[in-house]
Amino acid sequence: MRPSTIPDLDTPALVIDLDAMERNLRRMAEWFAGRACKLRPHAKTHKCAEVARRQVKLGAIGITCAKLGEAEAMAHGGIEDILVANQIAGELKMRRLAALARRADVTLAVDDLANAAEIGQAVRHVGATVGVLVEVDTGMGRCGVAPDAATVVRYAQELSRMPGLRFRGLMGYEGHAVLVDDPAERRAKAEAAGRTLLDCVAAVRKAGIAVEVVSGGGTGTYDITGALDGFTEIQAGSYVFMDARYSRVRPEFENALFVATTVVSRPTPDRVILDAGMKSVSQEFGLPLVVEPQGLQVVGLSEEHVKCVATAGTCGLAVGDQVWLLPTHCCTTINLHDRYWCVREGRVEATWPIEARGKSA
Amino acid sequence: MRPSTIPDLDTPALVIDLDAMERNLRRMAEWFAGRACKLRPHAKTHKCAEVARRQVKLGAIGITCAKLGEAEAMAHGGIEDILVANQIAGELKMRRLAALARRADVTLAVDDLANAAEIGQAVRHVGATVGVLVEVDTGMGRCGVAPDAATVVRYAQELSRMPGLRFRGLMGYEGHAVLVDDPAERRAKAEAAGRTLLDCVAAVRKAGIAVEVVSGGGTGTYDITGALDGFTEIQAGSYVFMDARYSRVRPEFENALFVATTVVSRPTPDRVILDAGMKSVSQEFGLPLVVEPQGLQVVGLSEEHVKCVATAGTCGLAVGDQVWLLPTHCCTTINLHDRYWCVREGRVEATWPIEARGKSA
Repeated sequence: MRPSTIPDLDTPALVIDLDAMERNLRRMAEWFAGRACKLRPHAKTHKCAEVARRQVKLGAIGITCAKLGEAEAMAHGGIEDILVANQIAGELKMRRLAALARRADVTLAVDDLANAAEIGQAVRHVGATVGVLVEVDTGMGRCGVAPDAATVVRYAQELSRMPGLRFRGLMGYEGHAVLVDDPAERRAKAEAAGRTLLDCVAAVRKAGIAVEVVSGGGTGTYDITGALDGFTEIQAGSYVFMDARYSRVRPEFENALFVATTVVSRPTPDRVILDAGMKSVSQEFGLPLVVEPQGLQVVGLSEEHVKCVATAGTCGLAVGDQVWLLPTHCCTTINLHDRYWCVREGRVEATWPIEARGKSA
Repeated sequence: MRPSTIPDLDTPALVIDLDAMERNLRRMAEWFAGRACKLRPHAKTHKCAEVARRQVKLGAIGITCAKLGEAEAMAHGGIEDILVANQIAGELKMRRLAALARRADVTLAVDDLANAAEIGQAVRHVGATVGVLVEVDTGMGRCGVAPDAATVVRYAQELSRMPGLRFRGLMGYEGHAVLVDDPAERRAKAEAAGRTLLDCVAAVRKAGIAVEVVSGGGTGTYDITGALDGFTEIQAGSYVFMDARYSRVRPEFENALFVATTVVSRPTPDRVILDAGMKSVSQEFGLPLVVEPQGLQVVGLSEEHVKCVATAGTCGLAVGDQVWLLPTHCCTTINLHDRYWCVREGRVEATWPIEARGKSA
């Protein structure tokens, strides 16, 4: 599928296998086709407007972002319906958010009423509104209010009354479930988290408040959480490209993202050094894997060096040869690069800017 | 020294404490003042032309880079004498290198004669030359030819005859020594590596070939390797900003680089979530430390969340408050950001672009 050398690549190059990516996009779209629950893909993975537009074209109801800066980049790229599945705080952020709310349909996760009031005031000041979802901690222990019906109902009531805000529903992210290797355990954890959120939804409705949006899920749980009656949207991100870590839990999607590197040194017959490193491939989920050529193993990363050894005998490589790596974490690897090199049938078909790269603010 | 909140910062913000940075720059310049061995600071740390120009103004003889893209950015920023302390390979790289060699004084590390010949041919094609240093593996086990006198002499002879190249000397980087905590062990390892390189230098000179440059060293070893008779330049980088890891071996320099963050969630009285994460602060040398306020500890990073807990009792923080982090690895943290926020006496004095961020190709 991948030729061992594409001379047009200026390595280390972040490469998309376009055929594989397109199959991933279609496969996920097909799972959601005709369901009550819709796909709202997470742009924190790809950070690229071209990929987001393709997801929307295939049926996604909008895009999820992790940060305001990502949302700005996606709006600039033509995406109109954006969920920032995260809290936004700070004076400068309020001004940027207000400006964004004037040109896109923005919904935010909130878990603090004073913060929500500040947001409402800021967007109202420019004549706009934003939607809000109460984030509920469904077991991950990160952000979100406690999954206590009385608390969540109180939040829904207060938010419904705040100027500048449209209370739209609830959100809970089962981040503690998405990467569980054992399928039965993953299902149990995701279903427990999902039911916790749905119990809160029922309590809010019982209090007479409409709940339009129930949002959660990820690539590891899309077909579990997305099948629970009551969820309206799933925030899966990694399925578009996958990586060595996610492949363990989601074999139905293909690895479509690679880092093409060049051998810059062959100090001994059984060792080569590649021109990637910590600054071009992430390692918090483990060392990247060599996908081509066979018989080579990554044993360590420096900032700008990947050290590889032959698994047996010698490497059979010379300085200038290409070696293709499979990242173990696509999201953080992508965040190191400014562009994708899009490859089909062994040729570079396009390069796409990664507009939201580094947009953590 | 650092106020707990600077509202002008759009967090997560990479902050330079300008006073501390300037003291670090002066302290290192003073150590080298009047010595035979000179400072050639490594720009892979700061990736910023403004910092590089200040280093040169304080006496540095030029700049070290890890990658061709960094060297291009530094040349564009007005740096005229550049060592790329790394191998460069691949067809596209040869063309870029040739273009760069026409507008800056470029020297490269080489450890492969076929690669060196290709480089010579490429630069000669545009009427330029590049300097070359033979990289010798002095114990790190990464790139470089074996520290064998006959081999190194042969390389020097061959390189001296190659059109387009100027053989200038030898390089060896004691990366296995720079972060050794125990000072005596660090000294022993650095001196052994340095002597290995100097033995090769003697052999090349004995063969009748002039050796103008003997390059090596880092922040952890600048005053060890830099004091060995025969070294002409030291490639220290991290001293300009420091970090929690390097502070353990170099207490004479100050921490001058921080990531300012904002509390976006306070789910429980003893836990806060900050708006930084793996995409804005690196963790391969450990979790970042909280420098302000006191009584708070980082317990985990997600992509866009830092989870902190109170070391005792409650946090005493609200959503919107700032928390300042000290990175454990400045080089990879900087590579996640597009700009520095330069702070003096509690105010933002400037922002500087990080021109070489992401320039791994």
